[in-house]
Amino acid sequence: MTRLASLNDIPPGLVEILDYIRRHGPCTRAALGEAIGLSRAVITQRLAALGGYGLIAEDGVGPSTGGRAPRRLRFCADAGYLLVADLGATSIDVAVADLAGEILAHRAEPADIAAGPDVVLTRVEALFEEALLQAEPPGAVWGIGIGVPGPVEFDTARPNSPPIMPGWDDYQMRGRFAPYGVPVWIDNDVNVMALGELTAGIGRGRENFVFVKIGTGIGAGIIVRGQIHRGAQGCAGDIGHIQIAADREVICRCGNVNCLEALAGGAALARDGEAAALEGRSPFLRTLLAEKGSLDAADVARGAAHGDAASLELIANAGRLVGQAVAAIVNFFNPSLIVIGGGVAGAGDTLLATIRQTVYHRSLPLSTRDLGVHRSVLGDRAGVVGAATMVANELFAPEFLPRWLDAGSPVAAEG
Amino acid sequence: MTRLASLNDIPPGLVEILDYIRRHGPCTRAALGEAIGLSRAVITQRLAALGGYGLIAEDGVGPSTGGRAPRRLRFCADAGYLLVADLGATSIDVAVADLAGEILAHRAEPADIAAGPDVVLTRVEALFEEALLQAEPPGAVWGIGIGVPGPVEFDTARPNSPPIMPGWDDYQMRGRFAPYGVPVWIDNDVNVMALGELTAGIGRGRENFVFVKIGTGIGAGIIVRGQIHRGAQGCAGDIGHIQIAADREVICRCGNVNCLEALAGGAALARDGEAAALEGRSPFLRTLLAEKGSLDAADVARGAAHGDAASLELIANAGRLVGQAVAAIVNFFNPSLIVIGGGVAGAGDTLLATIRQTVYHRSLPLSTRDLGVHRSVLGDRAGVVGAATMVANELFAPEFLPRWLDAGSPVAAEG
Repeated sequence: MTRLASLNDIPPGLVEILDYIRRHGPCTRAALGEAIGLSRAVITQRLAALGGYGLIAEDGVGPSTGGRAPRRLRFCADAGYLLVADLGATSIDVAVADLAGEILAHRAEPADIAAGPDVVLTRVEALFEEALLQAEPPGAVWGIGIGVPGPVEFDTARPNSPPIMPGWDDYQMRGRFAPYGVPVWIDNDVNVMALGELTAGIGRGRENFVFVKIGTGIGAGIIVRGQIHRGAQGCAGDIGHIQIAADREVICRCGNVNCLEALAGGAALARDGEAAALEGRSPFLRTLLAEKGSLDAADVARGAAHGDAASLELIANAGRLVGQAVAAIVNFFNPSLIVIGGGVAGAGDTLLATIRQTVYHRSLPLSTRDLGVHRSVLGDRAGVVGAATMVANELFAPEFLPRWLDAGSPVAAEG
Repeated sequence: MTRLASLNDIPPGLVEILDYIRRHGPCTRAALGEAIGLSRAVITQRLAALGGYGLIAEDGVGPSTGGRAPRRLRFCADAGYLLVADLGATSIDVAVADLAGEILAHRAEPADIAAGPDVVLTRVEALFEEALLQAEPPGAVWGIGIGVPGPVEFDTARPNSPPIMPGWDDYQMRGRFAPYGVPVWIDNDVNVMALGELTAGIGRGRENFVFVKIGTGIGAGIIVRGQIHRGAQGCAGDIGHIQIAADREVICRCGNVNCLEALAGGAALARDGEAAALEGRSPFLRTLLAEKGSLDAADVARGAAHGDAASLELIANAGRLVGQAVAAIVNFFNPSLIVIGGGVAGAGDTLLATIRQTVYHRSLPLSTRDLGVHRSVLGDRAGVVGAATMVANELFAPEFLPRWLDAGSPVAAEG
């Protein structure tokens, strides 16, 4: 491989060519030239320069135009590998992915994010090692990406006053992973999931959509014009604390009354399920509570799946409340798609059905004319797929790649 | 002036140069070249080609770098003129503006948007003529821009199922104004107001902000990355029908219960003011009602300004309800600024104060850390200034200007 001596050695337009092929898939030289407005000769010249990095290969055959069938250019997703993690309030998911976000090895275990960065990230590192042993990627690791359950200052990769992550505020994530010698990016977990759906899931090709995560808490990832909308302080999408019209009053951990999360999040479902068990309204949950000592949202979902009336009503009620917030989002933002994900989203069809019903009832007809409300297709993998996409997008961004190659990246280092 | 024979005659890069000077104000050739990445020689060559259109002039003196003081390039906002209108539910505002959105003449009168396009647009045309007589612009009219109180399909300039505009659905606005022989753009009135604040008001230089209009109805204009966010069906910002947690039940004209507009819009304030007068809770409003036969939101505002307790409570209550919806927007979207405008926004400090108080109370601390909640600085003129900005932005857009010049625009026609 080629080692670059300085920034000036990078052929102009190289980054654009690489990014186009990576995002649009295999294409002929002619299609590439037309798309980015360069002549065939210039394209060929630049591809030659790019060839040395092992990132573009020729293979297959494109649609013939009569003469010799043109060859297609393909992005080599296996030129390098990524280490990614999706940290939830109560779980760690870790994966080794290729440069296209394909997962090669996946490890998951329960965890408590409130245990702080030292404890949690020590486990992340151990799981990185396990996943690398399992995947045995033939190439080098090129980057690390992590989703965390709280607001993040993206440019500096630091958690920013995350409410459920004591000890993580302003933690130097890049410093912690410096021994790996590769660039590190961090984002809010829901943003990362939205990115996963955008590139490899149900949001593919959508310009404007919203990913709603219903887990222990509730949050949203917002895609505007094909990019994550992070907002002024990086905390856009924090819909868990939107005030909801409800027929009771519940105090939220934030101190306010009737926040969406306090009424309909996973923790709220668990709390209300335990109350139903103790008050004798649900024989199913009472038996479960006696066995386990406590209930979680999955137990209520299980009750609903078994036809337990109280569990079904709890799930439907949560769906109506989430639907009310989603309807407000639809009125305000007019997206073309709402994706429902997160642990509680897997709770069966009742939840999705009542969310849909409320959204269609409470949003303006025009804004729901072509609106889809669908479950995440990536499910548990949305976070790690999205984290890999985030790292690949940043690595190959026009403003990053040249500097990175110049600084002696793994690409250059193998030269 | 130069007449262009065909699209191919337009020097490449001309549009970019024009757009840069127009948006950034006077600058030297050196600054321009650096900003758009072209050599001094190329800039000079393109400016020569551009000179013929009367759109760029040299004047003043830039910061000296030691030798001869460099001259600054200036956009000639008086090369052409724009006819703009801001249609409200109960008012028409019309203006003649220059290409920088500066208002040269302004005409306003009451109107009923529900009277339909024939009646309303005949008045708009008459007011255009009056404003032109008053302004006596020395150049030709180059474009028409209109804000309407409903959703718009921007590309075709047609109202799209506007709820308070019977007879306007799918109306061919471009056909109606075809006799003027200039391009026509239409957008939702609140989008247009947001654009006005972005280019000439309190939103100047902000990447992400939300303009909230409180008039007869309530709506929002959303700026994302410096551009209007219209959404999938062009109805983003329709916050008037977000469900609000309130201690009473009010049926909205949309059929739902406790929509923001039904609780806190101008029509709601008028209704609640009349109720207060009839029930003897407000001597001030009772006197006014006896005199006028009916009340509007401005009367309630007048009552508040006079210290009438019932009026003050009505305004404060509306502020709390609007604040609840704005807090939800802040949590979801994390803007850096909320601009409050529209007729009711001028109702005195109580409204703005209670909106602010509710937003700071109900939004997450991180999202309000640097959040400003301010009144529109353009006030009544936000709509016409924004409509002029919309037309100028579209006229000088890289994808429009070349086609337009080619088709024999007023610019070319004067050659």
